[in-house]
Amino acid sequence: MVTMQCTTTVVTPEGTQQMRETVLEETPVGILLNDEPVGTAMVLAQDLEELAVGYLFGQGYIDSGDTIFEAEVCAQGRVNVYAEVEPKPEEEEDEMVTTSGCGGTGRMAKRLFQESSPELSDFNITFDQVGELIRSTLACSSLRQDTHCVHGCGYLSAEGFQVCYEDVGRHNAVDKLLGAILLGRFPTAGAAYTTGRLTSDMVLKCARIGIPVVLSRTAPSSLGLEIAQRAGVTLGAYVRPGRVNVFHAPHRII
Amino acid sequence: MVTMQCTTTVVTPEGTQQMRETVLEETPVGILLNDEPVGTAMVLAQDLEELAVGYLFGQGYIDSGDTIFEAEVCAQGRVNVYAEVEPKPEEEEDEMVTTSGCGGTGRMAKRLFQESSPELSDFNITFDQVGELIRSTLACSSLRQDTHCVHGCGYLSAEGFQVCYEDVGRHNAVDKLLGAILLGRFPTAGAAYTTGRLTSDMVLKCARIGIPVVLSRTAPSSLGLEIAQRAGVTLGAYVRPGRVNVFHAPHRII
Repeated sequence: MVTMQCTTTVVTPEGTQQMRETVLEETPVGILLNDEPVGTAMVLAQDLEELAVGYLFGQGYIDSGDTIFEAEVCAQGRVNVYAEVEPKPEEEEDEMVTTSGCGGTGRMAKRLFQESSPELSDFNITFDQVGELIRSTLACSSLRQDTHCVHGCGYLSAEGFQVCYEDVGRHNAVDKLLGAILLGRFPTAGAAYTTGRLTSDMVLKCARIGIPVVLSRTAPSSLGLEIAQRAGVTLGAYVRPGRVNVFHAPHRII
Repeated sequence: MVTMQCTTTVVTPEGTQQMRETVLEETPVGILLNDEPVGTAMVLAQDLEELAVGYLFGQGYIDSGDTIFEAEVCAQGRVNVYAEVEPKPEEEEDEMVTTSGCGGTGRMAKRLFQESSPELSDFNITFDQVGELIRSTLACSSLRQDTHCVHGCGYLSAEGFQVCYEDVGRHNAVDKLLGAILLGRFPTAGAAYTTGRLTSDMVLKCARIGIPVVLSRTAPSSLGLEIAQRAGVTLGAYVRPGRVNVFHAPHRII
């Protein structure tokens, strides 16, 4: 169960009335890398394999070139990711940045903001595909409508709409997508669409993995835009089925 | 300047068109406690004294009983808070939780979730005051309308509407309010209204400081509600001037 029912009291100047509301379950999940605890994230407890891998990638513990053997969802709210990563000497511990954004991904290593991004995959998106991506993401589940407490992140490749992930944090939803890509389930040649804002870490994570088109229902921040410009990512905001407001690299919208 | 202007390309099936957009500046700010770097937060660079104090409180570095001498905004995007805090022995370093939410406050010490909250201040809110709090918060600046990239957090005490803080993260905006309270600028007897969702850390921070009424334009999560229940906080969601959907403790809405 990812939601719970509760009874609320609607208070108005005219009096009170009982009401039934659906509330999203926010769950702490511990994330381990090769049996070492890395952190605890507050999440929507579904798609936890993808979340854990994406969380470790987003914060800089694993890179897109690392080999991931397995993500194991254990009892007691923990996920253990087994991967071949270079162990870091203690004295080189990363300085971390607390980001404006959400969920399992509230921090990331400072060095990630300075690193150059990989070459982006070759991908263009048509207006029909933009419409498909938006409609399929928003129709992904009833959680948004029922709880008003989730963000969605959908993904479309040349083969059509692939997947939508949801989470209490817009960043966690993106992490789930990136985790799925790192687990080899989807190609990096595609377009991601988020219902949340495109702040620096949102764009940076997508650029680091090589996704060429990043779209949002709403706005980017200045740093989100700057990172897209540096990486060459197509950044679209206020995206609707027949209209993309492109802040950088419009040539991939065809 | 907290915004920048940029030219975007609106792409539709009928063609392209240039457009001017206002983008919110997202700025990295380093936070220090007694000259020791604690972290870097991605924020809207205004009200940085309040932000820094609230950030340290939210993450558990300072408590509401600690004496804060000064918050000094330095050059190069850093804020140094001087406070009398018990130095923690290295071996007792806090286990941190990455929260679902935003901004300078993406993590908090795990122990904070287990600690009991202080007694809440005595405070009731009338419907006239609810309306005043919402309208004043939403009218606080044009940043929301211009950039679609900020959350607001307003505060009202028995003396009326006090203040509204804004930030790129809903959590940072709350941190700015809590920082201001810790700096002695506002009493804890009041009602906070946020444009963001009431996830666990949002409610927990308000409860820890003793704010009795916490209201949101939108939804709570299950853990946000649970913390309100444990602390006795009045939790109102989907709040409009003439209507509060109270998830816990409706007696303070009069």
